[in-house]
Amino acid sequence: MSAELDAAFMARAVKLAENGIYTTDPNPHVGCVLVKNGEIIAEGWTQRAGFAHAEIDALAKINDARGATAYVTLEPCSHHGKTGPCCEALIAAGINRVVVAMQDPNPQVCGRGLRKIREAGIEVVVGVLAEEAAKLNRGFFKRMTTGLPWIRSKLAMSLDGRTAMASGESQWITSKEARQDVQGWRAQSSAIVTGIDTVWYDDPQLNARVDFDLVQPVKVVLDSNLRMPLTAKMLQNSVEVWIVTCSDDAGKLEKLRQVGCKVFQVGAKNGRVDLVETFELLAELQINTVWVEAGATLNGALLDSGLVDEWLIYMAPCVLGDQARGLFHLPGLQIMQDKKLLHLSETRQIGSDLRLRYQTQRA
Amino acid sequence: MSAELDAAFMARAVKLAENGIYTTDPNPHVGCVLVKNGEIIAEGWTQRAGFAHAEIDALAKINDARGATAYVTLEPCSHHGKTGPCCEALIAAGINRVVVAMQDPNPQVCGRGLRKIREAGIEVVVGVLAEEAAKLNRGFFKRMTTGLPWIRSKLAMSLDGRTAMASGESQWITSKEARQDVQGWRAQSSAIVTGIDTVWYDDPQLNARVDFDLVQPVKVVLDSNLRMPLTAKMLQNSVEVWIVTCSDDAGKLEKLRQVGCKVFQVGAKNGRVDLVETFELLAELQINTVWVEAGATLNGALLDSGLVDEWLIYMAPCVLGDQARGLFHLPGLQIMQDKKLLHLSETRQIGSDLRLRYQTQRA
Repeated sequence: MSAELDAAFMARAVKLAENGIYTTDPNPHVGCVLVKNGEIIAEGWTQRAGFAHAEIDALAKINDARGATAYVTLEPCSHHGKTGPCCEALIAAGINRVVVAMQDPNPQVCGRGLRKIREAGIEVVVGVLAEEAAKLNRGFFKRMTTGLPWIRSKLAMSLDGRTAMASGESQWITSKEARQDVQGWRAQSSAIVTGIDTVWYDDPQLNARVDFDLVQPVKVVLDSNLRMPLTAKMLQNSVEVWIVTCSDDAGKLEKLRQVGCKVFQVGAKNGRVDLVETFELLAELQINTVWVEAGATLNGALLDSGLVDEWLIYMAPCVLGDQARGLFHLPGLQIMQDKKLLHLSETRQIGSDLRLRYQTQRA
Repeated sequence: MSAELDAAFMARAVKLAENGIYTTDPNPHVGCVLVKNGEIIAEGWTQRAGFAHAEIDALAKINDARGATAYVTLEPCSHHGKTGPCCEALIAAGINRVVVAMQDPNPQVCGRGLRKIREAGIEVVVGVLAEEAAKLNRGFFKRMTTGLPWIRSKLAMSLDGRTAMASGESQWITSKEARQDVQGWRAQSSAIVTGIDTVWYDDPQLNARVDFDLVQPVKVVLDSNLRMPLTAKMLQNSVEVWIVTCSDDAGKLEKLRQVGCKVFQVGAKNGRVDLVETFELLAELQINTVWVEAGATLNGALLDSGLVDEWLIYMAPCVLGDQARGLFHLPGLQIMQDKKLLHLSETRQIGSDLRLRYQTQRA
């Protein structure tokens, strides 16, 4: 099989994997294509945690896969989880060649599935469209390799960098189209993180309001001193709410648990929840991707921490003036030399607004 | 002659007119093409005030223009200024068709040149590439029709809308490429306007540092209380410095005049120079286009006044934090409903920065 054809079939597998971006959490999005005599005979993808993995999904669609090549966007698993190990299923089905985009990033399992397949005498090719496959599951891969989720923070601002009036009034700076765009990003995140100030100012529902099937992201409130109001709108639907705190006020903890919140305690740093510990906790709780919607205080601390992978900024063509609230509270930043550098990776018009994507510059 | 050919020759005339954008002030940029038997026989453009207009420049390049068509981006003049009237020169040369992009916008002379040409029995066509021709001389046309110059304000900011640290430190937020781009804009302006605070904080030279021939823009300082330092860097070269004030402190006025400044007095509004009067004054002084480089106070007042035609914002991929200085000082802006709306017309990457162009939304 030519490298071009391998890439073409893998591109199809990547496309299939994308079907799962709103539903597979905390599992990775995986696609699979079975090819015989140069033609696709079956396709599959991972749809939901606990359901069939991509390979099993594809195999289930045909009676006879003997002699076929399997294209999979991620190394087939070798463990007995909720579903059987995929590598064994491929072997049992009589597949005679396996092409994978990349190995499993989890250091504990990396290479095991492929070894089993090789040991069964099946040809294995690794690395076809590896970059595209890596993009599919940035959060899952980062969690597996670093113990932290992929963190993206969203900001909506006027062209003079203001997120709200001095009074806290913030509805609306950006266009309807930009706010709709936000719903799609929320929908593909594992968790939406906000700060307690935003709960008090905006009382957001913080769910993804979209018209397609999805696993709703968990709502996470960083609430150092347990100021969470029991009447918050976000508590009024069935999506889980997690409170991360460094307080040990047993009475408040109990009250929050009574209204259905899960409360997690982490260490304090300068009187607030330690951010590194917080995101490590979220990764342990199988959160792959975090979508932050917060105010200047939390975003300032996040920028300072270097924890955020991407900043997504909606910039409206309006001016709110210098009495209005800023984007990042950074009291320690006083000289030009200490300015925080980012890297602009994308500019796009959404409605009347610009959507700017910035990556953290890492040394 | 077909409309397509007329447009093609006029496009060439527009291109020639652009040769003059750095040098014709306060005259308009004009281009002229002479065509005979479908071929260009001579080209000309207005190069400098006091020198030949585009038509005369083209006619001077050939011995015999009889029977030719003249394409001119602006109605030929009919008055005896520093150079003779162009309409008479075209008639005398035996031109038998005149195509102009647009009439002279000056209500006092509009149509006179064309009438003279028609009266000489020459065919006249008006309106070919009128829009392109209008763009060539937005400042001149605005001054002629409204008594105000075309006003463009430039801002350089971090992505969180900050123009300087709290201390005033502002060098440098944007990239070398962006700062070089600014020089080109300065060069094509009739005047660079700044506020007295910027003189105190940055002590700018405020000249156009380019390596081509140009008429240097006049430097204008809005200095309500005559605080202009006599040692300011901008006074140390041969370009004219104009001070606009509402003070009548005779001693200070005299000192500034002694170091070569021209000082103009206008009325006061809320203790500062009246901006409408200021720009009307500049238009009277034959300033077609103004390039503003100022701080938050003047830009806030300008935004409030609605006088600015275009905002040009260089946005660097860095964060300065909420202690740093804002873009627009707008103390009266307290509720979302009063936000100032602009219209984004262009986004362009310059070095690592974004250059954003916003037009004022006029009702």
